[in-house]
Amino acid sequence: MTFTHKLNQAWHSQNSLLMVGLDPDMNRLPEPIRNDNDALWQFCKGIVDSTAPYVCGFKPQIAYFASLGAEDVLQQTCDYIRVHYPDLVLLLDAKRGDIGSTAEHYAREAFERYRADAVTINPYMGMDSAQPYLERKDKGVIVLCRTSNPGGSDLQALHVDGKPLYLHVAAMVANRWNKHGQCGLVVGATFPDELREVRACVGSDMPLLVPGIGAQGGDIQATCNAGCNSVGTGMMINSSRAILYAGNQLNWQEEAATVAQQTRDAINQARKI
Amino acid sequence: MTFTHKLNQAWHSQNSLLMVGLDPDMNRLPEPIRNDNDALWQFCKGIVDSTAPYVCGFKPQIAYFASLGAEDVLQQTCDYIRVHYPDLVLLLDAKRGDIGSTAEHYAREAFERYRADAVTINPYMGMDSAQPYLERKDKGVIVLCRTSNPGGSDLQALHVDGKPLYLHVAAMVANRWNKHGQCGLVVGATFPDELREVRACVGSDMPLLVPGIGAQGGDIQATCNAGCNSVGTGMMINSSRAILYAGNQLNWQEEAATVAQQTRDAINQARKI
Repeated sequence: MTFTHKLNQAWHSQNSLLMVGLDPDMNRLPEPIRNDNDALWQFCKGIVDSTAPYVCGFKPQIAYFASLGAEDVLQQTCDYIRVHYPDLVLLLDAKRGDIGSTAEHYAREAFERYRADAVTINPYMGMDSAQPYLERKDKGVIVLCRTSNPGGSDLQALHVDGKPLYLHVAAMVANRWNKHGQCGLVVGATFPDELREVRACVGSDMPLLVPGIGAQGGDIQATCNAGCNSVGTGMMINSSRAILYAGNQLNWQEEAATVAQQTRDAINQARKI
Repeated sequence: MTFTHKLNQAWHSQNSLLMVGLDPDMNRLPEPIRNDNDALWQFCKGIVDSTAPYVCGFKPQIAYFASLGAEDVLQQTCDYIRVHYPDLVLLLDAKRGDIGSTAEHYAREAFERYRADAVTINPYMGMDSAQPYLERKDKGVIVLCRTSNPGGSDLQALHVDGKPLYLHVAAMVANRWNKHGQCGLVVGATFPDELREVRACVGSDMPLLVPGIGAQGGDIQATCNAGCNSVGTGMMINSSRAILYAGNQLNWQEEAATVAQQTRDAINQARKI
């Protein structure tokens, strides 16, 4: 099953566009497990199990594991998701970008080592830097387009032929990189007008990964109005910190589940399905 | 000692602008060690020991270790370089790019876990994505500018206000990111005219990491004419495959040393020192 097919099925069967980002910060783990030897794994497993009913997928952020030398826990978490929640999308957030021979190794990291369904990449080095990912036709390739951070405008908003750079990226991915229908774009929820422009540029079928709700303050209604496709799907709306750290005491899993459920419901209300 | 200071000392004491990239491909390891359990480590150590006399530093490429789940060998290699060749620059080629909270974790990966002197990063997400690296004032931050791969032009050559995007990146890094004099730029040797433009844009002091000689075909004389500063330094000229895989038999270390020495000499001849 291809990434796109799996994502479409997950949107419908789970009735959810919510994706939970796994960004485990050791300083913010719940108190009852914080001092355990396997705290990181307990936390990842606990968040996955408690929020799985409310999500279309999970997005582990590799940096949080790499800074700890905890690639083994990332691998364990990815394996756990694939075994216990095989219908949910596993998107590795890595934002890789390098020349073809090196990119091939990053593609193996994402798709063979961690067996992700999709990976995020950076467009700055151009098409051959994306080729090793694109050659895996069943895998998803989610390209940075318009990011939700303050410095996102430094390059992305520069105008080229009267259009901002991020729209050139959107067009390049839609017209040249997406031959197998496997591409998506990262577009932050903090800029709903620009999310609308990107959706108009790439058409109804391309999935958008939308971070920036929750801790970063993006508005859910504005996001859905701007980014949903004609059938009310089309986005993986990511929330990380607001869900991961919803609770800090014995009931941290229930608290995370509650916020995940509320976020899914708010998205469903906003997309009027 | 800051990265910039260390690099300047290495250029002079080693009389070399050559940097050896550590991109170990398991399929190309020398026959005599290929089937050993610790082949990857033997190869990295062997290349470091045999080429150290001829280089200003080493540039391990993290992807080649990540695809194998061999972060431990990368760490061992970095530790080995720091202990046995403390005057040579250790540049981690990671090309990271992510929002501030995630970038902080990548900065820890590069500077605490692997204890690199410098790291490569991607500019697409703007200044706050670079901030966690820049805050480590003694560390080097080498930003992708004009890359040597075929698709490098897809975005980098787009014109913004009459200038290609890569010159905007060069100016942004020189004028806004380089407050502590710690920044450098990646500019490929396959475009000497553009290397000259970048050097003119950023002035004499900013070091340039220049891949693309050797296997990628860049011309050493043209590179030195275009990219050296007024005292004949200013570049880390990288070669990986041409040196790593110079020999495949029992004398693979000598063969690597020979090509490294020849490359250093060709660079010194070209920069007329």
